[in-house]
Amino acid sequence: MSRLQAFLEHRNFTFFIIGLILLNAALLGLETDDVLRETYGGLFHRLDQLILGIFVVELSAKLVAYRKSFFSSGWNWFDLIIVTICLIPASGPLSVLRALRVFRVLRLLSVVPSLRRVISALLQAIPGMTSILSVLLVIYYVAAVLATHIFGNSHDAELETLFGSIGQSMFTLFQMMTLDGWRTEIAEPVLVLYPWAWVFFVIFIIITSFAVLNLFIGVIVDAMNIIHEEENREKGDVPLHADIKLLRADIEELRRQLASQKTG
Amino acid sequence: MSRLQAFLEHRNFTFFIIGLILLNAALLGLETDDVLRETYGGLFHRLDQLILGIFVVELSAKLVAYRKSFFSSGWNWFDLIIVTICLIPASGPLSVLRALRVFRVLRLLSVVPSLRRVISALLQAIPGMTSILSVLLVIYYVAAVLATHIFGNSHDAELETLFGSIGQSMFTLFQMMTLDGWRTEIAEPVLVLYPWAWVFFVIFIIITSFAVLNLFIGVIVDAMNIIHEEENREKGDVPLHADIKLLRADIEELRRQLASQKTG
Amino acid sequence: MSRLQAFLEHRNFTFFIIGLILLNAALLGLETDDVLRETYGGLFHRLDQLILGIFVVELSAKLVAYRKSFFSSGWNWFDLIIVTICLIPASGPLSVLRALRVFRVLRLLSVVPSLRRVISALLQAIPGMTSILSVLLVIYYVAAVLATHIFGNSHDAELETLFGSIGQSMFTLFQMMTLDGWRTEIAEPVLVLYPWAWVFFVIFIIITSFAVLNLFIGVIVDAMNIIHEEENREKGDVPLHADIKLLRADIEELRRQLASQKTG
Amino acid sequence: MSRLQAFLEHRNFTFFIIGLILLNAALLGLETDDVLRETYGGLFHRLDQLILGIFVVELSAKLVAYRKSFFSSGWNWFDLIIVTICLIPASGPLSVLRALRVFRVLRLLSVVPSLRRVISALLQAIPGMTSILSVLLVIYYVAAVLATHIFGNSHDAELETLFGSIGQSMFTLFQMMTLDGWRTEIAEPVLVLYPWAWVFFVIFIIITSFAVLNLFIGVIVDAMNIIHEEENREKGDVPLHADIKLLRADIEELRRQLASQKTG
Repeated sequence: MSRLQAFLEHRNFTFFIIGLILLNAALLGLETDDVLRETYGGLFHRLDQLILGIFVVELSAKLVAYRKSFFSSGWNWFDLIIVTICLIPASGPLSVLRALRVFRVLRLLSVVPSLRRVISALLQAIPGMTSILSVLLVIYYVAAVLATHIFGNSHDAELETLFGSIGQSMFTLFQMMTLDGWRTEIAEPVLVLYPWAWVFFVIFIIITSFAVLNLFIGVIVDAMNIIHEEENREKGDVPLHADIKLLRADIEELRRQLASQKTG
Repeated sequence: MSRLQAFLEHRNFTFFIIGLILLNAALLGLETDDVLRETYGGLFHRLDQLILGIFVVELSAKLVAYRKSFFSSGWNWFDLIIVTICLIPASGPLSVLRALRVFRVLRLLSVVPSLRRVISALLQAIPGMTSILSVLLVIYYVAAVLATHIFGNSHDAELETLFGSIGQSMFTLFQMMTLDGWRTEIAEPVLVLYPWAWVFFVIFIIITSFAVLNLFIGVIVDAMNIIHEEENREKGDVPLHADIKLLRADIEELRRQLASQKTG
Repeated sequence: MSRLQAFLEHRNFTFFIIGLILLNAALLGLETDDVLRETYGGLFHRLDQLILGIFVVELSAKLVAYRKSFFSSGWNWFDLIIVTICLIPASGPLSVLRALRVFRVLRLLSVVPSLRRVISALLQAIPGMTSILSVLLVIYYVAAVLATHIFGNSHDAELETLFGSIGQSMFTLFQMMTLDGWRTEIAEPVLVLYPWAWVFFVIFIIITSFAVLNLFIGVIVDAMNIIHEEENREKGDVPLHADIKLLRADIEELRRQLASQKTG
Repeated sequence: MSRLQAFLEHRNFTFFIIGLILLNAALLGLETDDVLRETYGGLFHRLDQLILGIFVVELSAKLVAYRKSFFSSGWNWFDLIIVTICLIPASGPLSVLRALRVFRVLRLLSVVPSLRRVISALLQAIPGMTSILSVLLVIYYVAAVLATHIFGNSHDAELETLFGSIGQSMFTLFQMMTLDGWRTEIAEPVLVLYPWAWVFFVIFIIITSFAVLNLFIGVIVDAMNIIHEEENREKGDVPLHADIKLLRADIEELRRQLASQKTG
């Protein structure tokens, strides 16, 4: 490990970077206050530039220190993308990008080890959910196309807003899945024109709730399995088998001893 | 296995069918756009007919290849029903059936093996839930009849909409179970006329939440049990007992050896 | 077991009673329809009386057959109370009691064995939840009294409706716990007069959600424990210890044999 | 243990205090009724003062009995703070503090042993949730700052109410997290001006639901682990290993005996 690597991975350096991110987070929060922004706007801007500069230097140092292996870590890519977004000149029509500076605070997730572990764990849970998520997506897509075809072509202003295009249908069905105001805002305007539509809504709610429930259970069971395996490794169920093997060897040894005694 | 069966179960043929379904899904999505439909309507229609034709040929080939055993698989029935729905001439008053073409996308659930497994697992979870679901249904039905008798005969327009018939009561109580707008939209209009109705609503919410919660737990515990059994079979708790049996046999052997030595 | 008991516990008799309850349930459902009630009202009434009569005879027979031990079963009490409610003459101001006839359908829960088991299981889960439920109740009561004292004395019509008395506060906080329309319907009218009230609402939502979550977990863990214990009893972890005891006895025997050989 | 300590920890004394707290709770509840307060206001006040006096005496006695070790228990601090709040003279602008007297009811949580255990268990669950809670907070803060910067500067009255300051954004996003009225009350006013904002809302809902779900699972898994460990300690998986050690020692002994026999 080179000296630069040692420096970059030193506890104190990490604490310094965490401190900077927290300071940056606080500044970004204070900046949302109109009065504070008008009074200390210049200071905010300079501190912001300074912190961004330190981040650029830090990442460059990492690039120099690790070279190609820098790119093998997803976390480094994460940091790189976030810092790059913040370097885009944000003026004129792109002024909305200035707000994206706040993504720098997300660096906390890659710098603080315990948060990093949580994110890793969450990402690891995703592959186990692929199948059930796909089923949910297929049902969701079919429901959206169906709703757009049937309810969206009704020449009724309210229904057009809800189900006019496949995008609007998807957003409306997402709302339905969260169960927020589904009767008055979605079901009732539809039921006026299509009295049998309640079948669609009730089935959609039951199926998606059931699928989400199973997603949930899948994640729990997965997590439990990982925990179980770790436990078993620690507790050592295998050692028990190994213990018995040793025992049998002991007895075998005893028998041989006895046999030699007999012949002796 | 006949050559036709081999062909139908070949990886590439499955990929081809999956590709067709995805293409069909994309077409159905694009068709919801009015502009695209007017411009490319003819193309959409011809592609749709072509894909449907291929599905019909595929299913016929399966019928020929597997004969009677074709009908022993629920998945084949599923495919057959979906393709049949799409073959119904959809015009005039039946034009709503045209929208049902989108159900063809559901074939993904029967063709992609991983999704098929998810659906199987979900269906397997249902028998274990029958009892608790029945309890929920009994309570739900009693509450619906009760609400219709009491609140539905109040000669109040709003209450008649909510609880006028047993069907409306069920829909209203379903809304209540999803906790969506239950106070302003359901409880308050009722409370004006029946000040003691809050007892009914609070008890209904608590009981159904508790029942749904237990449904949930039942499914989790079922899933855990299946996992446990599989684990135990893999890990082999039985072998441990078997190991000890072997040990005892070893010792028995030793004792006999010793006894023979004594007498010898 | 007397002949009467044998008759009452016969499969076919149980099926007959279940059939009667289901018929009664269907009749009660049909009776909610105004047209049907006016046309077949008399028939409905006579069938209803007949079924009630059979239930009375059934319960009397049970009372005769089991005498005092009849009252030792909670299920019999349940049946008795339900049938008694239905016998109360329901006319004039008590006409609402007529609607309570639908409670007879709840007899399904006591007659069908699988539903009976579910209800028993649900009731068994309650004692394990007493402590956490008490904590929830204490917090809920304190919040209700606090809200009534502070928000209820504001001489504001809307707040008086929400928090005017302790009963109203409890109902409002129950709504808050279900998260239904809590911002627009509860928080916003309060925030106009008490800008710091958001602290109260956010803390209340977080604490009650957390408590309910833990209630949930408690029930799951309890259920899992029961499952585990049953599994262990079946699988027999104790026999493993017993096996090893047998082994040690074997070896002890061997040693004694060896010792006798030495001296012999 | 001194005589005073013995008295303070006596069952009957605890029951007396619990009774007083319950009486106090009932009084505070009755006091919210305007009519009762006007009629029995004086009595309520005197009883309230009396109970408070007893609590002060009780705590002083505890302070005398345990001296410094009094402060080593968090529960004593809890009682002390609650009683102190109730001693603050509440008049004029501080009249809202009078309502805080109800916090005395919370003493039930520290006095009743079973409730005390629940609270301890809940508090113990918190450290295990720190990491995932931090991740949730980081995402929540970033979303709040982002929403304030983008939606809060739109010079639109409705959006200013929702996202005008970072505090308002946080409250609005908290509402969004509870899924209460998120479409009509939050998303729709924003979507009028920022048609692409649905991406923000959908991602926010999915991420926070997923994080909350994982918080949930974390707590379950933690609880299960604690249960498992306790089970294992009771059931004794270690003894099994110990049993086998004893076995091996037995066989070793046997071998030595055999060896001595050989040489003898």
